[in-house]
Amino acid sequence: MPQSQTINRRIVLASRPKGAPTPQDFRLEQLDVPTPAEGEVLLRTLYLSLDPYMRGRMSDAPSYAPPTAIGDVMVGGTVSRVVTSRHPKFAEGDLVLGGAGWQDYTLSDGRDLMSLGNAPHPSYALSVLGMPGFTAYHGLLNIGEPKPGETVVVAAASGAVGAVVGQIAKLKGARAIGIAGGADKCRYVLEELGFDACIDRNDPDFARQLADACPGGIDIYFENVGGAVLDAVLPLLNDGARVPVCGLIAHYNDQKLPPGPDRLPLLMGLVLRKRIRLQGFIILDHYADGFAQFYRDMSGWAAAGKVKLREDIVDGLENAPEAFMGMLQGRNFGKLVVRVADPTGS
Amino acid sequence: MPQSQTINRRIVLASRPKGAPTPQDFRLEQLDVPTPAEGEVLLRTLYLSLDPYMRGRMSDAPSYAPPTAIGDVMVGGTVSRVVTSRHPKFAEGDLVLGGAGWQDYTLSDGRDLMSLGNAPHPSYALSVLGMPGFTAYHGLLNIGEPKPGETVVVAAASGAVGAVVGQIAKLKGARAIGIAGGADKCRYVLEELGFDACIDRNDPDFARQLADACPGGIDIYFENVGGAVLDAVLPLLNDGARVPVCGLIAHYNDQKLPPGPDRLPLLMGLVLRKRIRLQGFIILDHYADGFAQFYRDMSGWAAAGKVKLREDIVDGLENAPEAFMGMLQGRNFGKLVVRVADPTGS
Repeated sequence: MPQSQTINRRIVLASRPKGAPTPQDFRLEQLDVPTPAEGEVLLRTLYLSLDPYMRGRMSDAPSYAPPTAIGDVMVGGTVSRVVTSRHPKFAEGDLVLGGAGWQDYTLSDGRDLMSLGNAPHPSYALSVLGMPGFTAYHGLLNIGEPKPGETVVVAAASGAVGAVVGQIAKLKGARAIGIAGGADKCRYVLEELGFDACIDRNDPDFARQLADACPGGIDIYFENVGGAVLDAVLPLLNDGARVPVCGLIAHYNDQKLPPGPDRLPLLMGLVLRKRIRLQGFIILDHYADGFAQFYRDMSGWAAAGKVKLREDIVDGLENAPEAFMGMLQGRNFGKLVVRVADPTGS
Repeated sequence: MPQSQTINRRIVLASRPKGAPTPQDFRLEQLDVPTPAEGEVLLRTLYLSLDPYMRGRMSDAPSYAPPTAIGDVMVGGTVSRVVTSRHPKFAEGDLVLGGAGWQDYTLSDGRDLMSLGNAPHPSYALSVLGMPGFTAYHGLLNIGEPKPGETVVVAAASGAVGAVVGQIAKLKGARAIGIAGGADKCRYVLEELGFDACIDRNDPDFARQLADACPGGIDIYFENVGGAVLDAVLPLLNDGARVPVCGLIAHYNDQKLPPGPDRLPLLMGLVLRKRIRLQGFIILDHYADGFAQFYRDMSGWAAAGKVKLREDIVDGLENAPEAFMGMLQGRNFGKLVVRVADPTGS
């Protein structure tokens, strides 16, 4: 049980970033720990997930979710322990998945919580068994529809989504080609995750190496980065290729469009001539329909060691902004998670 | 029965166009009418279909179909009458659909022919009941998946594909918004075809008028033009919009990409945020699976007057190049068909 404290630290959005976020865009505040009312629980955050989508919430550009207001707590998925329960379905000490955001404590009426029981690896609820894993599963299987022998390419292949995409592709009999930043990440993707190849996107010869790794072209490109990776992928797409679009991290800090020529007609022409399916998705839309099936499949695969994931654990809530800013530049290695409190409670 | 002639006029590809085709890219040749061998028929072309896809075949850029070779007859769908038959399944006088291309006569072993019986409106086999109609049907129903009350936008709305897209949309309970070039075409689309609105793409205020006609946004944009129409459509697309991509006529004569900025990342960002499905298709891929069902449905609709189409008939094979060049600039009004010989045979 975490020791009881009286201060709730939280990180709020101080200003909307122009381009890459800076430390000044975040502010650490200290408030009193709130007290649960009847029907509520008080939660102590153990793990906070840091994910690229959070960059979108910091902006007020039109998007699929309303922006975080200036002064509000940064959003984020969390694994927490119940400190005090005034809710009949939760007991003190219970481990739950929720969305407390970037703070030590929060209250909940339980409706946004999923009990984690005695999960052997609770932080996986934020990655393999959570939103990133579900993103990979839904995008690859329901939009990508991989067939045995097809070639699947995914960038950020050592990250939470990319790593799972490639491992599911292998389970389905497809070839998995990863793209990652640096030799260490590539070695991990190849040797630990079992991809068929992994190309270093920092290599000046990157585009040619990708082409060499895909001698039969690309049937599925799982898009989570955009930028130079997409540019290298486009000429390799096969007739009938599927491109699930789940993220464009290379562009999240863009303040204006890149210089010309305008390649929008080029992309449209490629979609037409190669009968490409380009489909965006936001995983929040699919929980009601698909999460239960995903969770069953993925729990089995994870327990059997067929899908695994390196975690990049950062200690201390106060380090979340720096870790987040680094992630947007690819400095994390594996799923980025902030350990906000010692999960053993000691 | 057409009078027997001894000269077969044909129009061949003389050179590959750079940008818009010119008269010099075509050459009219005169050869002897060929003689059918055992198992063959000699066909007299009555109607030749002129369609935008032919521009692609004139180029040797990579595409879904091999280019027409220099010196070869221009390709094209045709309605013909059997002049001489040495084939057991065809009799002299039969009306058939085939692909004779831009010429008076051709031989066939029958494998590429579909008998038209005593079709009341044989040239419809090149439009409503043929490839353009099937393109509209497949793209709208199988990719667009219109639901009652949704808004469907289609350009070239007085043309063979666009006109059918809008009429099927109405049959399915959706709103049909057309875009066409000029007041006459718009009036026809609105009054004769029964669209809910038709916007003149030549109006300087075009983009605002389109937005006004789509107060609830656009759920399906059937893409057959690209260019300025696509630019006006993009900001109006709703979450979950579907964009079947069947043509990009505004770009077929392009020799280079337009100047910047590069809007490729903008399009990808839109696909992501709005969960858009952008899907290219080539109708030739779908004949085996879908043509029979299409033909049943569309024959019924056409016979009942629920789907109709104005035809822009040009007389004389020698006028095909000019008519084709005009079509690429939107000068046709309705489905462009060349009447190569008098179908009554008189």
